[in-house]
Amino acid sequence: MARVNNPKADEILDKQFDVLDHGFVRLIDYMGSDAAIVQAARVSYGDGTRKVSEDRGLIRYLMRHRHTSPFEMVEFKFHVKLPIFVARQWIRHRTANVNELSGRYSVMKEEFYIPDEDNIRPQSSDNKQGRASEMAPEDLCRRFVEYLNKSQKDAYSNYQKFVGDDLAREIARINLPLSLYTEWYWKIDLHNLFHFLRLRLDPHAQLEIRLYAEIMADMVKTVCPVACEAFEDFILNSVTFSGPELEILKDSLSTFKLKKDELVARGLSSGEATELIRKLKRLK
Amino acid sequence: MARVNNPKADEILDKQFDVLDHGFVRLIDYMGSDAAIVQAARVSYGDGTRKVSEDRGLIRYLMRHRHTSPFEMVEFKFHVKLPIFVARQWIRHRTANVNELSGRYSVMKEEFYIPDEDNIRPQSSDNKQGRASEMAPEDLCRRFVEYLNKSQKDAYSNYQKFVGDDLAREIARINLPLSLYTEWYWKIDLHNLFHFLRLRLDPHAQLEIRLYAEIMADMVKTVCPVACEAFEDFILNSVTFSGPELEILKDSLSTFKLKKDELVARGLSSGEATELIRKLKRLK
Amino acid sequence: MARVNNPKADEILDKQFDVLDHGFVRLIDYMGSDAAIVQAARVSYGDGTRKVSEDRGLIRYLMRHRHTSPFEMVEFKFHVKLPIFVARQWIRHRTANVNELSGRYSVMKEEFYIPDEDNIRPQSSDNKQGRASEMAPEDLCRRFVEYLNKSQKDAYSNYQKFVGDDLAREIARINLPLSLYTEWYWKIDLHNLFHFLRLRLDPHAQLEIRLYAEIMADMVKTVCPVACEAFEDFILNSVTFSGPELEILKDSLSTFKLKKDELVARGLSSGEATELIRKLKRLK
Amino acid sequence: MARVNNPKADEILDKQFDVLDHGFVRLIDYMGSDAAIVQAARVSYGDGTRKVSEDRGLIRYLMRHRHTSPFEMVEFKFHVKLPIFVARQWIRHRTANVNELSGRYSVMKEEFYIPDEDNIRPQSSDNKQGRASEMAPEDLCRRFVEYLNKSQKDAYSNYQKFVGDDLAREIARINLPLSLYTEWYWKIDLHNLFHFLRLRLDPHAQLEIRLYAEIMADMVKTVCPVACEAFEDFILNSVTFSGPELEILKDSLSTFKLKKDELVARGLSSGEATELIRKLKRLK
Repeated sequence: MARVNNPKADEILDKQFDVLDHGFVRLIDYMGSDAAIVQAARVSYGDGTRKVSEDRGLIRYLMRHRHTSPFEMVEFKFHVKLPIFVARQWIRHRTANVNELSGRYSVMKEEFYIPDEDNIRPQSSDNKQGRASEMAPEDLCRRFVEYLNKSQKDAYSNYQKFVGDDLAREIARINLPLSLYTEWYWKIDLHNLFHFLRLRLDPHAQLEIRLYAEIMADMVKTVCPVACEAFEDFILNSVTFSGPELEILKDSLSTFKLKKDELVARGLSSGEATELIRKLKRLK
Repeated sequence: MARVNNPKADEILDKQFDVLDHGFVRLIDYMGSDAAIVQAARVSYGDGTRKVSEDRGLIRYLMRHRHTSPFEMVEFKFHVKLPIFVARQWIRHRTANVNELSGRYSVMKEEFYIPDEDNIRPQSSDNKQGRASEMAPEDLCRRFVEYLNKSQKDAYSNYQKFVGDDLAREIARINLPLSLYTEWYWKIDLHNLFHFLRLRLDPHAQLEIRLYAEIMADMVKTVCPVACEAFEDFILNSVTFSGPELEILKDSLSTFKLKKDELVARGLSSGEATELIRKLKRLK
Repeated sequence: MARVNNPKADEILDKQFDVLDHGFVRLIDYMGSDAAIVQAARVSYGDGTRKVSEDRGLIRYLMRHRHTSPFEMVEFKFHVKLPIFVARQWIRHRTANVNELSGRYSVMKEEFYIPDEDNIRPQSSDNKQGRASEMAPEDLCRRFVEYLNKSQKDAYSNYQKFVGDDLAREIARINLPLSLYTEWYWKIDLHNLFHFLRLRLDPHAQLEIRLYAEIMADMVKTVCPVACEAFEDFILNSVTFSGPELEILKDSLSTFKLKKDELVARGLSSGEATELIRKLKRLK
Repeated sequence: MARVNNPKADEILDKQFDVLDHGFVRLIDYMGSDAAIVQAARVSYGDGTRKVSEDRGLIRYLMRHRHTSPFEMVEFKFHVKLPIFVARQWIRHRTANVNELSGRYSVMKEEFYIPDEDNIRPQSSDNKQGRASEMAPEDLCRRFVEYLNKSQKDAYSNYQKFVGDDLAREIARINLPLSLYTEWYWKIDLHNLFHFLRLRLDPHAQLEIRLYAEIMADMVKTVCPVACEAFEDFILNSVTFSGPELEILKDSLSTFKLKKDELVARGLSSGEATELIRKLKRLK
C-alpha cells in the first residue's frame, strides 16, 4: 500500500514559509511518498526486488540509472507568492500545472520586491548572466533601494488612481514593474520538480529564485527523504566529465587502485561499487 | 483549505473493479477534490466569487468556458490490468505518467483476453473503425473463441518453453499475442482525464477500452461529483454545430421564444441563461 | 510526397509584420502543408481514402471529429516582439518551444508599449476581465498616455544609469514595467497553434494579444489554407450547446425539415449532411 | 537567416533505410539546422557572441551546460516501419507527435519480425532486462525461428480467414503477435530526439530498437553535424560520477597536473579548459 501516513509532512501542510521580503511558499497538498516510487517501479521490474529492506537500494538504483518514470508518481502542489521577474523564470518549466492571480480580474496589491542591500551586487565579470561575489559600493546600494522605493510607490499610486478613474484593469496594470508580487498555485510531479530544483539550486540561477528552490527542497525532503538523498548524491553532487575531458583525465584515473570490497567499505553499495569499477574500466 | 476528507472516495481506494475477463482498475491514490478546483480558480479570479454556495456555479462556469487549468489541480493514480491492444490505444494519451510491467524484466503471466460471445460482432458497414450493432453468426463466434483459446495456449506454452530453455525474455515474448494482459500504474490530472474519458466513452471508441472508461468515470465521480456533473452537462451531452450547419439551422432556431426568466425556470442558471440568449442572438 | 513547394508561404518568410507600436511577428520557418496532414492521416486510415480530390474532405473530416494528431505534423516557427504583459499570457501555452531574450545576459532596449488612445477603455461592466466597448473620457486617455510616457522614460533612464554604475543587469531590470518589449523565437505545431488561436482570437482575449493572433492566423492560412478553412468552419464559427440547453432547444430544432439532398444542395458535404441529421435525431 | 540549403540532407529525404528484416526508417521532412540552434540561442544571449566563427563554440557551450531549449528549434519527421514490441518501447517518449497505422481501419499486412539467428541469445546473467553476449545453442535458435515462422503464418491465416468471414477488424486482430510490423509517422524536436537517442543507443536498450536509433543518429548528423558532435562529446561519451564516488576518486584526481594552456593544447576549447579546472578544484 503506497498511501502511508506521513505526520511530518502533514505538519508543514499549509504552513507559510517566508521567502524574500513579501514572498512565501506553502505546501498545499502532496500525493505519494518514497513508498509510491517503489510501488510503481515494482510493477515494471517485477518480484525480484521485493524485500522491504531493499526499498532504499531500489530508489537509489532508479535515480542512478535515470529511470525517471517512477518519480513521476509523486505529486506536489504549492502556493507561491513571488515577484513577477521570478515568475517569468519559473514558468519556463512547462511540465507543471499553474493557476496564477490575474491582473485582468483582480486589482493587484501594493507589494513589491526590494532586495536586501547585501544582495545588491555588481555585474559579475566572469559570468555573463549573474552578479558578482563582491559587494556593490554602499552608496550604489542605498541609491538603488531609494529609487526602487520611490518608483514602486509612484507606480502603485498611479495604478490605483487610474483604476479609480475606471480605466480597465487590464490596461491600467501595464506599467507596474517586474518587482510586483504575484501568486500562483503550482503543481508538479517529483521527477519534474527535481529537474526544477537541479536548475534553480544551481549557483548560476538568479539568487531570488534560488531562495525559493532551497525552501522547496526542504519541503520535498519531508515527503520523500530517500528519493531526496538519492537526488543529492547522484544528481546535485555529481560531476559529469565529457568524452574529451576523460581522454585527458584517463591517466590520473588509471592510477585508481581500490577493489570492490574496499569501495563497499568506503560506503558504496555493492551495485554502485561494481558500476564504478565498470566506469573506470571503460576509460582505459 | 482544499484537503478535505472524502470518506466515500477513501472507501474505494485500492478496491479492485473487474473489467473484461481478467482485467481490473484500482484507484490507488488521488489528490484534491471539487474544493481544490475552486481554490485554484479563486487565486486567478480573485475575491468576487467567495461565497461557499457559489462553488458549484464556479465549477460549472469554468467547465462551460473551457477554463481548464483549475481542473489540472486534481490528480488520480490508477492501477490497471488490461490487454495489450487496449494498452496501445490508451498510451496515446501523452499527458500522463506510466509505469508498465516489463516483459524484459519479468516473465509474463498466462492471462489473455477472450471477448464474450456477445461482443464478437461483424465489421460495421457505416463505421470504418468499429463493429456492427447486430450479432455475428453463432458459429463464427464459437469458432473465433475456440481459435483464441487454442492459439493463446500454444503461444504461452511455447513462450514458457523457450524461457525455460534460457532464451532471453525480451526475445521469447515477441510472439505473444496482443490479447495478452499487461499492467500499469497510470497517473493523470482531472483535465486530461476528462479528455481521456470524452474520447474513450464515445460510442466510436473500441468497446474494450470503453468498459475501462466507464468504470473510471464512476470512480472520478466519487472524488469530484460537481466537476463530473459539469463535464456531463457541458462536454459529454453537448452538441457542437459548425458554422455551415448553423447557417442552415438558423431559421429553426430563430423561432426560439423563451426569455431569461423562463430559461431559469427551466433549470438554467442565470449565467447560462444569459449565455444561451447571446448564442442564439449571434446566429441571427 | 508531403514536401511541396509553397511559393506564397516562402514569400512571407522572414518578413516583418508590425503589431502594436513597436512589436512584430515574423514567420521564420515552417514544415509541412495541407498535404502533410493528409499524408499522416492516411498512414492511420489506410487506402480507402486515396483520391487526391478527397484531400479537402479528409482534412475537414479530421477537424470535425477532433482527430487532432495529423495536424500536429505541421510545424511553425515565429520570431515575435511583444510587451512583457502579453508575453506572460502567451507563455501559458505550454506545448511550444521558446527562446526568449534574457535581461540577465543583455541590456534591454528602450522600447515600451503605449496603447492607441482608441484602445484605452473603461473597465467593462459585464465582463470581469476585459475593457468596455465604449470609449474612455478623452481626458483620461490623455492623462494615461502622458503618465506612461513619463514613467517609461524615468524607468529606462534609471535602468541605464544603474547598469552604467555596473549594477548587475539581473537586478537593475527588476523595476522595468510590464509594458517593456521583449522578443522570442516560438515554435509550435499546427494543432496546438489552432488551440492558441481559438483562445487568443476570442473577443474575451486581451486586445493586445488578439492583434498578434490575427496576424498569425493570416500567416498560417498561407501555409495551410484548407486546414484553416476547416478550423474556421468547425471550431471558430461553431457553437456548442450543453445538455441542459439542448433540452430547451429541442422543440425548436424538432421543426427542422430539410433532408440530406437538400442539405447537400445548401453546401454541406454528404458526410456532414448525414452527421447533422444524426445530431438532430439524437435530440428527439 | 536560419533557412539554409542543405543538399546532403535533402538527398536522403524520403529514402528508405532498411532496419531488421522488414522494417525501415525514412526521413520525411526536417526544419532547421545547426544555424537554427545558433539563431535561437542568440535571441537569448544577445550580441556578445555574434561572430560566425563562434557558431560551433556556442552550440558546444549550450550542450555542455544543458541549455536545451535552442535544440528544440530543430524538428524532424520520420516514417518508420517497426515491430509492435519495438513500437511499445518507442511510444514511451511522450514529447513527440505520432500517427500510427490503425488495425481498426485497415487490414494489417502479413509482415512479421524474425530475428537473425545471430541475435537470438540467452538471458543475460548480469543484466535483468537484456540478452547475453554469448550465443544461444544453435539448436535453440533453429527451433525458435521455426516456431516463429509457423506461428506467425498460423496467426495471419486465421486473421485473414476471420476478416474474410466479416468479423470486425478491431476484434479479429487481437491475436496477432507482438512481432507484427506496424508503421507510423513520428515527429520530434532535436532536444527530445537526443534524449531518445541517448536512451535507445545505450547498450542496455533492446537490440531491435537500438538498430533504429543508430540509423536515425546518422540521419540527424546529416542535418545538424555540429550539434551531433557536441551530443557525442558531452552526452554519449560523458561519464557522470556521483557525490559518493567523487569522495573516493578525489585522491586520484588531485594528482592531476595540467594547466589551462596544456589543456587547450590537448584539444579543449578555452572555455572547456577553464571549466575542467573548476570542476577538479571543486573536488578538493
